[in-house]
Order: sequence, then structure tokens, then C-alpha cells
Amino acid sequence: MNWYLDSGKESDVIVSTRIRLARNIKGIPFKQKLSETDINNLLEKMKYITPSLGYGLKFLKIKDMDDITKLALVEKHIISPDIISDRNEEESGILINDEENICIMVNEEDHIRIQIFNSGLDLQNTINLAKEIDKKLDNMLHFCSSKEYGYLTACPSNVGTGLRASVMVHLPALKLTGNISKVLHIVNSFGMTIRGIYGEDSQSKGDMFQISNNQTLGITEEEIINNLENITKKVMEQERVARKNLEKNEIELQDRVYRSYGILTNAVKLSSDESIELLSDVKLGTDLGIIKQLDDLKVKKIELYTKPANLQKYTGKILNAYERDIKRAEIVKQIIK
Amino acid sequence: MNWYLDSGKESDVIVSTRIRLARNIKGIPFKQKLSETDINNLLEKMKYITPSLGYGLKFLKIKDMDDITKLALVEKHIISPDIISDRNEEESGILINDEENICIMVNEEDHIRIQIFNSGLDLQNTINLAKEIDKKLDNMLHFCSSKEYGYLTACPSNVGTGLRASVMVHLPALKLTGNISKVLHIVNSFGMTIRGIYGEDSQSKGDMFQISNNQTLGITEEEIINNLENITKKVMEQERVARKNLEKNEIELQDRVYRSYGILTNAVKLSSDESIELLSDVKLGTDLGIIKQLDDLKVKKIELYTKPANLQKYTGKILNAYERDIKRAEIVKQIIK
Repeated sequence: MNWYLDSGKESDVIVSTRIRLARNIKGIPFKQKLSETDINNLLEKMKYITPSLGYGLKFLKIKDMDDITKLALVEKHIISPDIISDRNEEESGILINDEENICIMVNEEDHIRIQIFNSGLDLQNTINLAKEIDKKLDNMLHFCSSKEYGYLTACPSNVGTGLRASVMVHLPALKLTGNISKVLHIVNSFGMTIRGIYGEDSQSKGDMFQISNNQTLGITEEEIINNLENITKKVMEQERVARKNLEKNEIELQDRVYRSYGILTNAVKLSSDESIELLSDVKLGTDLGIIKQLDDLKVKKIELYTKPANLQKYTGKILNAYERDIKRAEIVKQIIK
Repeated sequence: MNWYLDSGKESDVIVSTRIRLARNIKGIPFKQKLSETDINNLLEKMKYITPSLGYGLKFLKIKDMDDITKLALVEKHIISPDIISDRNEEESGILINDEENICIMVNEEDHIRIQIFNSGLDLQNTINLAKEIDKKLDNMLHFCSSKEYGYLTACPSNVGTGLRASVMVHLPALKLTGNISKVLHIVNSFGMTIRGIYGEDSQSKGDMFQISNNQTLGITEEEIINNLENITKKVMEQERVARKNLEKNEIELQDRVYRSYGILTNAVKLSSDESIELLSDVKLGTDLGIIKQLDDLKVKKIELYTKPANLQKYTGKILNAYERDIKRAEIVKQIIK
């Protein structure tokens, strides 16, 4: 099963883990200075090495992909919105496998961005796979690095390890009990960044947040991973305490999650934003064992296939916003049945 | 089946029909001047004649009835709130049958108030039964009347025919399309009264209205009935036109009624007011064939057993407001299953 539909460790709170390594190839100018020939050479080189890299990876040029497929990958946070922008899409590519747990972006901001995804909290396995692929690629491509700084990257903020490790967390109880801003503040004070996945900061829709490391220089990969793991576990504990507190008002909590379930499963049209909000309550209800009509897989399917582009992939039709709102309500009913 | 659970003619719009005849007995002072002995004599007399009147009627003193039973009858509009007030309950009684389509109030405002109830629009049969009982009672009791005025009543507003005919109507589409105030105005200009059943006037909760005659003097029973029937049919037509208009925005309408259905059937606690509001949408959805999970009987059962006293009768337990809100949500689920 694809990682984004699967449940992992601690997945009542931790939705997914992701690792990104930024790398650049010796002898090729950095992104800003690439000529058209350089770009073509880079893409051709990556296409050429794909089969020998293994992992079931396939090479695709962004410009060869249809719009819905590209947007569907952006919605899953597998590729960045930046790589499909007008500026980039002519000169970029990806190496991706069917499981979609590995996606190497080529010529996004750096020559190479190795990305590994996993369900739940799984930083160790995720970084291990990233490092394994990094090593193989380094043998094939020879990455730029300096003794003093470590890996060199297009943007100074990534220099050093080139590592961005992150977890996506669902914090509905901290939001409901009003403790979210305190938690956001603490996480930031530990040199980590926490921000809403949909919308900004504490205004995040759907109570989904991403915690990631700030620092990439003057710190080892191990330290980054350990720090992130520790702070993530602290946040997870706080969320669980907040959930226990909500459970003291059992009826109020049940009423809240079941009303959202009632609307989500009976509405005849649903906007994307409303789905995200309702689904946050429904996920909480399912994770706490209150809502018995659903399981993790169904919640994840609803979450995925109600996103605009994935909805259209699911349906196999190009739909306008109004048509999508109607189809979204139908899909929820189909998945629940 | 009890009339209040049954469906009658035009019952997509017309919920029920009711007739009330106000009568007073010769040789007994009017309500305001009754001595304790007079009261006892009146109640004893009515108790005495009950068996020979027939119709399966039973005589009950209000003071002998438990609170929940009294309030349950008030909620069904079978007895007035006035008859169970502290001032009245010691000196009043009712004759009622198991079907509860006949309820004669004794010593409420007048000595006798004959009331007949029916499902849907059924003024002719209802007035016929009222007149039949009226005649029988007149033979037994001899009602006060004057050649000049007709029947004499405690309040001058009822002098003449002593007849109040009314229909209860559900007007959600006129409310939604904003045409309700126009309709209220027209009905009133035809010498009829239209008012909300719950709450006042156009602020009526649940879109339930009662249309009744104003005039009882200088007009025949037949004229009252015909006028009411005509104006009711006009209102009904207007409501149906408004529903047709709503149906043009099919998706919007479906979405509205199904969202209410989703909340009503999934909430874990429901206030009485919220139930009334949600049920108005759900009734509209059922009447228009949009909501297929429900039928008329289930809608009427939910409507009845979510009212505070009837809820407690259904449950067989005295419950406080918070307990009722939880039980109300359970009852909805039980009825729908």
C-alpha cells in the first residue's frame, strides 16, 4: 500500500515522516547559471542512470506530465509547487517509483533533491534509505562538497548536511483546548520550525502541522534526526494529554466528531476547505475509537481523494470547482460504503 | 394509528386540522362566577354523562393526571397550556379517547370546549364529528344560546358559533424563498389569523404555522369552514410553487436537507429547538422525495418524541434538560433504524 494510505507508528498523531537531501553535481554550474545545454545534459544524465539506480524508479520530465498528475503529486507533498511552476517545468524532472515513497527531484532548486516518505513516525528507516540512495548517487554523479562546509547547495540555508527532516502531525486536541500557540512557540524555541500544512501557522486548516529542522550547518545528520524525534515525541505527548482532557467531556467530544461525520457523509456538495475541517474532527473521532464506521484507511482515502487534483485522478475526468464539490460528496459516500 | 402520527390529505403541506366549539351550560354560572360547589357539580355531571356519550371517551380530572402526561398532551396541542395552569388545574377536567382525536375540555375558559383533531386537511369530516358530539351534548346538558347572538361564551370573541377552526401548515419553502411575510399579510387581510406554532409570527421555529378563523359572530359555521378551506388551499398552492422554485436549484436543496438529516441522525445531543429546525428541513426533504431513508411516519414519530414531555413518556423516565438532549439524539437513531 502507498505510504500515504498506510498507517505507521504513532499514526494517531504522526501522519508521516519525510527526509529531503539537497545535492549538486560537480562540474555542472548551479541552477542559476545553467545553460540550456547544461540542463539537457543534466536531465539526460539522470535519465541514463535511472535503471542502474534501481528501486523501481522511473525518470519523467515535468513537461511531459499532464497537469492533473503533476498537481496530484503536489497535493501529496511528493513534489514541490515550485518544480511545476512555469519557470521550472521546462527544465526539471523526477525519478519516482510506483510506491511513491521515493521521489528524486532533478533541477528544482538544486540539481538533485532526494526525498523519502514514510507513514507515521519513522525517522530512522527514512533517513537510512535516503543515505543509501545518496551514497549510490554520489558514486555515479559525484556531489559537490567542501571540507569546511559539507554539501554545497543553491541556497545557503541548506548548506552543510543539505538535510531537511520533517514530520506531519495532526493536533486537533491542542487546537481545541487552545494550547496550540504555546506548543508552536516551544517548538520554535528549540530551533525547529512548525507550521500549518494548509494555511499559515496557528490558523492552519484541518489541524495539520509540519515540524522540521531549521539548521543544516554545524550539526550532524544524527543530531538533526534525534532533535526532531525528541521534539516530535514531546508534541505528541502534549496532544495526547489534550485528547485525554477532551475525553473527560465525553458527550461533547462525541457530539462534535459525530456532527462532523454526519455532515461529511450526508452533504451533497463539499468544498475542499470544508472537507479538510470536517475530516480533522472525523480523524480525531476515529483515532479515539469513537467513530466506529470508519477505519484509518478510509479516513486516509477520503483525505486524499477529496483534494482537487487527486479527486480528478480518482474520477478520471477534468472537473470545474462546482462539479468537484458535488463529486467530492459522492466520493466520500463511495469510500465509506 | 393516532391522528398525529398518521398522514392525511395534502399532508406534504397540511399537517393537521382541528375544530373547537366553545359551549356553556344553562343554569350554571359562567367560569368567572363559579363557586366551589358549582365546579364540583359541573365535573361530576360531565363524569356522569361520559359513558352514555360514547366514542370511547374517558373522564379525567386534570389534578389527577401526572405532570408528564399533562405536558405531553399540551405538546400535542390536545389540551391548552391554560387548563393545566395552577389557577385551573384544580377545577378542570377532560373527556378523551384512546385515539386522542376527541378531547372535550371541561371548565377551561368555558364550561365545555369540544375539540376534534384530524391528520392532513379534513375540515368537513372534522366539523361533522364536532357537530354530532355538540348535538348529543346539547341534548344532555342544554347549552346557553340567544336568538340574537348564537352561543354565549365566557369571552366575547367566541360568541356566536363558538367555532374556532384551524389547520397546521408546514411552510419551509415560503420561508426559504422569503415570501412568507407576504403570505402572512394576505391571510390576515382575509379575516384569518396565521401565526407560528413555536415562537411568534414569521419568527416561527420549524416553519410550522397555524391558520384559523378570527370571526365567530355574524357568520355561519359553513362560511367559516369554507373560508378557511379556501385560504388554506391558496397558502398550500403558494408553498408548492415555492417548493418547485427551490427544486430548480436541485443540488442546493438536496445539500440543505441532507446536511440537516446528517446532523439530526448523527448528533449525540440535540436541543429541542435544534431538533425542530433540523426536522423542518428533513420533513421537506422527505415530502419532496429527496430523503429516501425516512417516511412520513418516522418523521412524525421523531417530531413527537423529541418534544420534552413526550420524550419522557417514550422513555418512561423523568429526565433533566441535559439528559433529555442526549436521549433525544438516541431516540432519533432508534426511530430511523
